[in-house]
Order: sequence, then structure tokens, then C-alpha cells
Amino acid sequence: MFESAEIGHVIDKETYDREVPALREALLEAQYDLHQQKRSAVIVLINGIEGAGKGETVKLLNEWMDPRLIEVRTFDSQTDEELAHPPAWRYWRQLPAKGRMGVLFGNWYSQMIQGRVHGRFKDAVLDQAINGAERLEKMLCNEGAVIFKFWFHLSKKQMKARLKALKDDPLHSWRISPLDWQQSETYDRFVRFGERVIRRTSRDYAPWSIVEGVDPYYRSLTVGKILLEGLQAALNEPKTKVRATHVAPLAEVQDGLSLLDCLDMTQQLEKDDYQEQLITEQARLSGLMRDKRMRRHALVSVFEGNDAAGKGGSIKRVAAALDPRQYSIVPIAAPSEDERAQPYLWRFWRQIPGRGKFTIFDRSWYGRVLVERVEGFCTPADWMRAYGEINDFEEQLRDAGVIVVKFWLAIDKDVQLERFHEREEIPFKRFKITEEDWRNREKWDVYRKAVCDMVDRTSTEIAPWTLVEANDKRWARVKVLRTINEALEAAFEKSDKKHKK
Amino acid sequence: MFESAEIGHVIDKETYDREVPALREALLEAQYDLHQQKRSAVIVLINGIEGAGKGETVKLLNEWMDPRLIEVRTFDSQTDEELAHPPAWRYWRQLPAKGRMGVLFGNWYSQMIQGRVHGRFKDAVLDQAINGAERLEKMLCNEGAVIFKFWFHLSKKQMKARLKALKDDPLHSWRISPLDWQQSETYDRFVRFGERVIRRTSRDYAPWSIVEGVDPYYRSLTVGKILLEGLQAALNEPKTKVRATHVAPLAEVQDGLSLLDCLDMTQQLEKDDYQEQLITEQARLSGLMRDKRMRRHALVSVFEGNDAAGKGGSIKRVAAALDPRQYSIVPIAAPSEDERAQPYLWRFWRQIPGRGKFTIFDRSWYGRVLVERVEGFCTPADWMRAYGEINDFEEQLRDAGVIVVKFWLAIDKDVQLERFHEREEIPFKRFKITEEDWRNREKWDVYRKAVCDMVDRTSTEIAPWTLVEANDKRWARVKVLRTINEALEAAFEKSDKKHKK
Repeated sequence: MFESAEIGHVIDKETYDREVPALREALLEAQYDLHQQKRSAVIVLINGIEGAGKGETVKLLNEWMDPRLIEVRTFDSQTDEELAHPPAWRYWRQLPAKGRMGVLFGNWYSQMIQGRVHGRFKDAVLDQAINGAERLEKMLCNEGAVIFKFWFHLSKKQMKARLKALKDDPLHSWRISPLDWQQSETYDRFVRFGERVIRRTSRDYAPWSIVEGVDPYYRSLTVGKILLEGLQAALNEPKTKVRATHVAPLAEVQDGLSLLDCLDMTQQLEKDDYQEQLITEQARLSGLMRDKRMRRHALVSVFEGNDAAGKGGSIKRVAAALDPRQYSIVPIAAPSEDERAQPYLWRFWRQIPGRGKFTIFDRSWYGRVLVERVEGFCTPADWMRAYGEINDFEEQLRDAGVIVVKFWLAIDKDVQLERFHEREEIPFKRFKITEEDWRNREKWDVYRKAVCDMVDRTSTEIAPWTLVEANDKRWARVKVLRTINEALEAAFEKSDKKHKK
Repeated sequence: MFESAEIGHVIDKETYDREVPALREALLEAQYDLHQQKRSAVIVLINGIEGAGKGETVKLLNEWMDPRLIEVRTFDSQTDEELAHPPAWRYWRQLPAKGRMGVLFGNWYSQMIQGRVHGRFKDAVLDQAINGAERLEKMLCNEGAVIFKFWFHLSKKQMKARLKALKDDPLHSWRISPLDWQQSETYDRFVRFGERVIRRTSRDYAPWSIVEGVDPYYRSLTVGKILLEGLQAALNEPKTKVRATHVAPLAEVQDGLSLLDCLDMTQQLEKDDYQEQLITEQARLSGLMRDKRMRRHALVSVFEGNDAAGKGGSIKRVAAALDPRQYSIVPIAAPSEDERAQPYLWRFWRQIPGRGKFTIFDRSWYGRVLVERVEGFCTPADWMRAYGEINDFEEQLRDAGVIVVKFWLAIDKDVQLERFHEREEIPFKRFKITEEDWRNREKWDVYRKAVCDMVDRTSTEIAPWTLVEANDKRWARVKVLRTINEALEAAFEKSDKKHKK
């Protein structure tokens, strides 16, 4: 695969000097147009052989274009805050906003290839990482990103010559590569695994460009032209979304019968039973959150439900069991301007707790397939792909030890009406009922359909939905607490086993 | 001072049960009203004696009020990202947005008192910290915050009894206090220094409330009532700003003569000299940024100047000397929604580089006393106090090893006109000239006055302004580079001396 990059293309200085001015001007123009459109973020991934001119090329791009709209990021060693979060968290926090360009060194590809070269893991893990990268990039493109992936290449001989030259250059001595490139075997392994990665992750929407690194003129012009072409294409035609590959058609609710219909909505608890069970479950939760094993985990719970189903009340009962320093409650409303300039999941990634902590989402990323779907705030293609993206997101959380517990609090339509009236009458609760609640109520059936699809498609083994019969608030609150406790215990047991092995 | 808190007020359960419902309702109402107004952030500082009920009270407030609008933060050990930044950075990144409430444990007072109790520093440093806290709080209040400072108190005897009781309670065994409260002397020192801090930092706009901690009913009602009163006051009357104490009247520019008039605007460089000097200074900068001593520092440079003065071009020449992984360029435009929900300086604090890094601000916090002053985007009181706040901000940066270099790029009015026309004519540069630039030009004299005042009031010893004669772009670029280099060298020498001592 890399053979063509080892031919040794050379461009003479005259040609270079002749072509550069127009290229720079065009690049700059494209950059400003993209900035004005604010429709796309540009993500440039820089990978390849040591000494092949990665740094120099990026430096040049900063000179050619407006560096005020470019963010160059390196991901070397992880900070302790990064280590306390899922691996992808560090990339999410550094994504460029729409209208800007992010150049990422040491990105997900560097991490997976280096890990494999070092022998930290085998091919199976590499393949998982490859799949993860593909899903991430597909999602980013669907959210409007334009992705460029550059692989700077050198033959082994060229690399050795280059490293020797760099060694004598005091300006370069300070850079420390995580791999020992002096070893011939490092090169071979790097190229072998690099090839595997490239072959598997080259896609229409995010293709790899392999750039010969030997001749700076050739290298610079090549990269500049590829960028220009890509940027202009993104400017000229409104991006077609990447088709989700595995979206089965949504099942029609048969004869109006769905999971929600199977709930026994008459479930309830007497006051005395409630008091007793509530206190028991709260004490249990309090103990579990103090358990030493909690330091290996984080806890996320998601509260969704009909309006007036009692999300707030349930959250309060959970919070009441805990030291306020241990948890955060994140209420999700319409996204802010900064949030709209990022991919949909960005604002949730920001709020993912570090180890030992607990974040309660009052409404969540499921807004995409509920309110945004129903109200038409996003296109059908957007919410259709969201199921897979969300499952992927939650899988990443779970893989990093984050326990995810999701509740749908269900009430009957007449119970909702009762509660709406009650809210209107009690001055103390009047803030809880708005015009919007009444409007949503009119869409009861559409929302119901959306809920069924959501539960159907995102109730995974690692993060199942718990449907909560919430006509009786007491029943709902105890069920919520008990479910969280059971999830914590199951996770602790599982990690006990893992650690015993 | 604490005597009154040791009397041992007690409230019986009946009184408590009678008073709580109305208090809760009123607190909740005040909380929602504040949330709707979105005019103020509420900051609650929690301090005092171990075992005096700090955690319990905050837990209770979370139950009484809507916990979704409350953020509880603890500042225990610093993360490595926090350690790489000035001390106040960790507080800035955790400030609640307008409309929300932040409850801060382990805040600036805890840090300063614990430091002094541990003997990590003497009274002089404590007094500096006290002054810093006062300036911070004054600024926060002026930015709309409502600050409550609670000191939970116990007599030594009460504390010992309480700690004994807690020791036997398994629910409390996991909390580790940074101080050894079992030692009688710890208590004495804590109370002594606590008293000193409280006496010096109790102000109308941010008063201390000393709360007897022994009786939970008394404690809870007292805190609830103080909060309610403060919130209602904030809701009912538009906040009067805290008067800046040391604002001398702005000097009138005598006969139109100012520092700007003293510049020799004919300064220029021939092309050959320019090329040579530019390369020399770039190489020098490149070397300095690679210097090991840079690891102890961070570098911030601020570019302000007339429109078309060549800020962008100068920034490019600086950037061209560096590895793109070492610097970030932050262009400052109108604040986003999230930024407007925070104190003015928040968005700049966010961008302060960690050790070893360099951030270039293309326009900056000085917008407050330039465009915001001239265009009336803030009140005169706001920009008048900004001088002091900015000096304080830069002092904090400098104290933490951040080198601050500030440039005003000055051009003559006719040179600006020339450049505007040039920009309009060259398609390549058309994006650089807008209607707004022409409008700003009409306010030339008003801006000039604002610049003079700015330089006059914020050219401090630690962060002086460098006025750059920019009619000749070459001269300006070389002067900018040379100034940065000199600042770096001076800082390195100074820290060499300090480390030799």
C-alpha cells in the first residue's frame, strides 16, 4: 500500500514558488468562507512515520492559512483528569467548534497503532479500536465535520537518513517520540499495523491521504491541494449525510400494543411500606456509594418520562441518600450557542463524571429521539442514526467502568391531567406547569410512539431501560432507588470477579 | 468573635416543624425567580469547624430547594491540570452560571486558613490571600453574584464530643479532613486564624454569617433564613454595584498630548534589515520557547491596536517561529451566551495556558475598556472598575509564573485610510474590511482617549504595555518579536536567581 509513497516524487523550487501563492490564497478564502458558514468543523488528523514532515507541514499550513481559526492539539500522556474518564473524553473536550479547524496530533490512530507496536494489546483489541474510530468519524461527519486523514510516509532507508539529520539539528532534539524509531523492527511493525488501520478506515466521508514525506515541496503542495479540494467540496455542496449502515426499519407498534402497555400501572405502595422501603434503599445506596469499589466506577443515571411523571421527585429521593459532594444533577434544556456549535453528544460528554462520582441527568441525550424527533428539531436521518450513536456512547461509558442506569417514568394520560390541574392550583407548584406542557400533552400518542422506539432500540444489555410505573409516586421512587442499587451491586460483583482472576 | 456562637442556642422540634414548610416554600420560590431572572449567580461558601454540620446543612438545603439548580463543589487536592495553572483557575472553572447556585466547600478561605494552620506560610502571606479574596468577591458581586459566607462554629468541647460521636458512625468514617482535629492546638490555631480572616473579609456585599453548629434545628433554620433574606433582597432591588475603593479620576489628556503622541511614527525598517532582524528574532524566540526554563513558565501575549494596524500579520510572524503544538491563538469577538452567563473575565481565565505553553490573544480582556466603553456595551462603572480587576488578574498570572506581554499597535489615521482602501481593492483581503471598521474609524478620537486611559492605568511593572509604531509593518513585527524575547529572557534570569537562592 505504501509502495506508491516511496517512489520519491520531487517538485522543484520553481514550480513550488509558482504554485504556492494561488494555493495559499484559495486556502485562505475557503477557510474564511467555512468560518462564515459555521456549518462544519474541520478535523485534520496527522499520522505517519517519524521524521516524515508532520510537524513541518502543519507549521506551514498555519502560515498559509489564518492561524487564528486553527487549533493544533497533541495528545501525549493523559492528565489525571483524563485518566479518570473514558478514553474518548479527551478527544471530545478538544473538538473544534463549527467554523474552525482542529489539527490533531497523537490522535486515536496514533494511540491504537503505538499500543499495538508496543505490544500492549493484540490484533483483536486493535480491531475494536478501528471499529470505534470508524463509528466516531461517521458520527462526526454526520454532525457536519469535514475530516482529513494524512499519513506521512517514508521508506525505512529514508527515515533513517532523516533521523540522522534531525539528530544533529539542535532545534529538534527536544521532541521525544513514544516509539524507538532507531530500531528497524519498530519501523516494520509500525508500517504493518499502520497499513492494517488505513485499509480498514478509509471511507468516502473520511478518506486517508498517503503523502510522500521526503521532498518538502512535494509534500507541502500535496497536502495543501488535498485540503483545498476537500474544503471547496464541503463549501459548494451541502453535505450529504453518511448513511447509517445498520438501521433496520422501525417496528410498527402492533395494534397499539407495546412494552408500555405491558406495565401494571396499578402498582402502588402504602405509606408505611413506602417509608420503610425508601429508608432501606436510601441507606443501601448511601453505603454502596461509600464502598471502596466505587473508586473504580462512576455512576450515571438518566431520568426521562412523561411530563409530570415525577422525575424531579424521584431525583430528590436519590439525592437525599447522598453527600452533596458526591453527585451532580444536570438538567437538560435547549442547547446553548456553544453547544450548538458542536456535535450533538458533546454537551453530554462534558458532563460525564470522573471515577467515584455520580451524575444524574434530568432529561438527557435521549432528547434527540424524543422531543427533537417529535418537534422536528432535527431531520429524520439525524434521529434515526442517533439510536446507534447513543448505544455506542453508552458502550464507551460502560467499557470505562461507568455504570449507566436509565429510567422511563410512565404515567397514564388521566393521571397526567390530574397532576397538571393540581400544579396549576398550588401556587408553590405553578412554576412546574407551562403552556408547553399542555401542547406536549396533545402529542401524547406521537411521544408514545417515540418512547416505544427508543426503548426498543436502546435497551441494550449493558445499559437497559427500566420502565417505571409512576402513577403511584411512592412505588416509582422506591423502584428507582432499588434499580440503582441493584446496578451498583451487579457492577461491583462483576469487577470483583475480574480482579480476582 | 465566636463567643456568641458558643452560647448554645436550641430550637425545639415543634418550632422547627412549624417553621420549615413556609421557609422551604419561600426558598424554592426565590430560587426559581432567580433562575428566571438569570441576572445573578449565587455563591455559597461553606467554612468552619470540623463536625459543626457543614455537610449536613448543605444536604438539607439540597432537599429544601431544587437540587437541579445547585452545584456543590469541593476543592480538595489539586489535579495536575490545576497545578499547571494559577491558583484561582480552579475556582473560575467551577463558578456557577447566572441563575444557578454554587456551594463551594474547600474554597479559598479553607485553603488559606489550612495553609496557615499547617504553618506552610506566615501571616504576611495569609494577609495577601485575604486581600486577594476580597478583590475576587468584590469583582464577583459587581458582576452580579450574590455571595453568602457561612462559618459553622463549635466550642472546643462541643467539637470533641461531636468528633467522638462521628467516629462511631460508620457513615462518616470515610471523610478525611486535611487537618488533625484531634489535636487541641489545631482547634486553637484554626479559630485564631479563622477569626482573623473573618474580621478582615466581612463586607456589606459579602458578609460572614457565623452559625452555631451544635443544634441541628437551630443551625438549619438559621442558615435557611439567612439565605432566604439574601435571595429576596437580591430579587427585589436591582443590585447596587460595589464601589471600587481606589479609583482615582481619569487624567484628562493635556492639550491632546498623550503617550501616543510621543511615539516616533516614522520608525521603519528597510527590507534587507527587516529580513535579517526578523529571522534573528524568530530564531531567538524559537530557542527560548525550547529552553528548559520555559517549563516553569507560561507565556501570554495580548495584541490590541487600531483596526488595520497589522495585529494579524504580527501574530503570524510570531507563530511562524514556533512549533504549532506549543501555542494557541485565541481570537476574541463578542461573547457567546455561555460566556455572558459568567463574570467578564471568565472566558479569558478559561484560555490561560498551562506551564510550558503560549497563548496569543488577538484582542483580549482589554475590550472592556476599549470597545465596550466606547460603544456603551457596559456601564461606566463597569469599565472604570475593570482597570483594577485587570491589573489584579495579570498580577495573579504573573505570580504563577505566567509572563504577560501586551502590545498596542498604533497607526496614524491616514495610514489606516490607505489600508482600508487597499483591503477593499484586493479580493484576497476583502474579508478584512467591514462596515464596522468604517464606523469605528469615525470614533477615532474617542477610541484614542480610551487607549490612553488604558495604557495609563494598566501599564504595571509586572505587565507593561508596549506601544508599537506600526505605520511600518516591518518595524512593528520586529519590535513585537524582540519585546517578547526580552520579556522571556528577563523572566528566565529572574527565576534563575530565585532558584539559585
